[in-house]
Amino acid sequence: MTLILALDFGGTKLAAAVTQVGTDEWLRYERRLSPINGNATTDLEIMRSLIHNLLQDETPNAIGVSFGGPVDATTGTVRLSHHVSGWENIPLKDLLEKEFGVSASVDNDANVAALGEHRFGAGKEYDSLFYITISTGVGGGWILNGKPWRGNAGMAGEIGHMVVNPAGPVCLCGKQGCIERLASGPYMAQDAKEYLLKEANHFQGKKLRTLVNDNLDLITGKIISEAAAQGDELAINILQGGALALGMGIGNVANLINPQRFILGGSVTKSGEIWWKTVQKTARNTALPEIDFEIVPAALGDDAPLWGAVALAETILIERIQE
Amino acid sequence: MTLILALDFGGTKLAAAVTQVGTDEWLRYERRLSPINGNATTDLEIMRSLIHNLLQDETPNAIGVSFGGPVDATTGTVRLSHHVSGWENIPLKDLLEKEFGVSASVDNDANVAALGEHRFGAGKEYDSLFYITISTGVGGGWILNGKPWRGNAGMAGEIGHMVVNPAGPVCLCGKQGCIERLASGPYMAQDAKEYLLKEANHFQGKKLRTLVNDNLDLITGKIISEAAAQGDELAINILQGGALALGMGIGNVANLINPQRFILGGSVTKSGEIWWKTVQKTARNTALPEIDFEIVPAALGDDAPLWGAVALAETILIERIQE
Repeated sequence: MTLILALDFGGTKLAAAVTQVGTDEWLRYERRLSPINGNATTDLEIMRSLIHNLLQDETPNAIGVSFGGPVDATTGTVRLSHHVSGWENIPLKDLLEKEFGVSASVDNDANVAALGEHRFGAGKEYDSLFYITISTGVGGGWILNGKPWRGNAGMAGEIGHMVVNPAGPVCLCGKQGCIERLASGPYMAQDAKEYLLKEANHFQGKKLRTLVNDNLDLITGKIISEAAAQGDELAINILQGGALALGMGIGNVANLINPQRFILGGSVTKSGEIWWKTVQKTARNTALPEIDFEIVPAALGDDAPLWGAVALAETILIERIQE
Repeated sequence: MTLILALDFGGTKLAAAVTQVGTDEWLRYERRLSPINGNATTDLEIMRSLIHNLLQDETPNAIGVSFGGPVDATTGTVRLSHHVSGWENIPLKDLLEKEFGVSASVDNDANVAALGEHRFGAGKEYDSLFYITISTGVGGGWILNGKPWRGNAGMAGEIGHMVVNPAGPVCLCGKQGCIERLASGPYMAQDAKEYLLKEANHFQGKKLRTLVNDNLDLITGKIISEAAAQGDELAINILQGGALALGMGIGNVANLINPQRFILGGSVTKSGEIWWKTVQKTARNTALPEIDFEIVPAALGDDAPLWGAVALAETILIERIQE
């Protein structure tokens, strides 16, 4: 039995699972929320205890790891985490290999999720695809010629910081009108809140206000989707603005790279039909008419990074055979 | 002696050359302007006579072809030409193979020029690059992992129709604010002319007017560059607007694909320092700070498609050896 250990260091949760090569089910699965005010050391401690629960007395044949932040995939060194402190330049691959005595492979969550969808999800049998996650941030991972494309320094896939409207609002990165600034959950919530503070007596946003009992700090991307589903005009406008930005980005990418499929995952993709239709229509109108592509929802949900970690570990096993 | 025949069917000119594998000089070289009101048949006739002059009594070992328009590179069939009539669905590869009895490979000019710069020009020893031509149109060709990336249906590289300003002027493709609409020579000329017609008594554009003796129909991209070099404010504004659009597109592409190099060719790249500096600065500001790349001028000039055709033909020879 060839055993794979898959690890997912997310920004807010830690997950680990074991599976047997050739199957698409978990043998065992563990998951914990990251502690508030945790750091790299506490994350590693928790992950260690999850792994020991999972492995019992077995030894995996390879370890695949998804990390929620920039990673140098060639060395398996974490560059940093935007959510958890203390991850600067941690040689995660080396740590795991020493501790467990087997080869490990580490990459960032967008690349790993793309690989997961390609191997086990909505991208099976597609040679070229772009996976996009639209959630607290907007990021992406490439599969080209059936393999991850990470770019020259492992930085490819940053669709979140594609500028689609140079006259748009200012993003954390300093530019105006980035897709992340327009389409991510927290930024949509911020825009709704600012509008409601400024236009306190306006009719728009009434249902949105009701959903949060007039406590505007409680507005989230998810609440905006709910209000939009109930017909709230402000929520619909903001959600459509985000979908327009994303759709324009997807159309631009189709023109540039002409992949077969776009696979969309992340919490914002659960925003319902208005959102999906606007993304589809805008992408179609932005791409040249002769460029075909499909935009489909991710199939693996929150487990995409874990399944991608399995695919990473499989790559280690394949390389071992080919050597 | 292994002989390669390289052909370039441009929109306005036809060129052909022969070279010996392993060298980077032409043995013989021929070039003609396309006849006005010509069509696919007259283009093919002229090319045939160029080839017979070049080959004399020799037979090439392979033929590489650059075509100025969409091509299905897998079959070597031309889809159409936007400049010359009668090219719809012409099986150019088959025609040449039958006539000369050797294998041929055909691709569109942007892909072929990218290959030429990669093999013989500014992209030597770079594994990932994006070649962009900014001329009567704006198009691009990819090299990823040292090989052409053509996309799922051979349509990759269309950076000209990336939208960088959704509030911008309307492009021929129907969208607003495409890079081609803002940065290509003819569109810059059109914008200058329209401005001068509308603001007939305005001081701006005085030098531009002088350069064309007040005959606004004579304004071209090249004349705008000349006027800008002389300090004409209108010309500078228009040229910088084009450079801004292109620079934003390049920065977006760096975020998405993270190639090592961008190589810029085409007539508009001869517009001088203002243009280059604006492209460089805007691209740097649009890409995330941690993403590195270089933007350099093409090295092969007008011969990039012919040298790329040589590289295409080399691929045929390599595949023959590997079989």
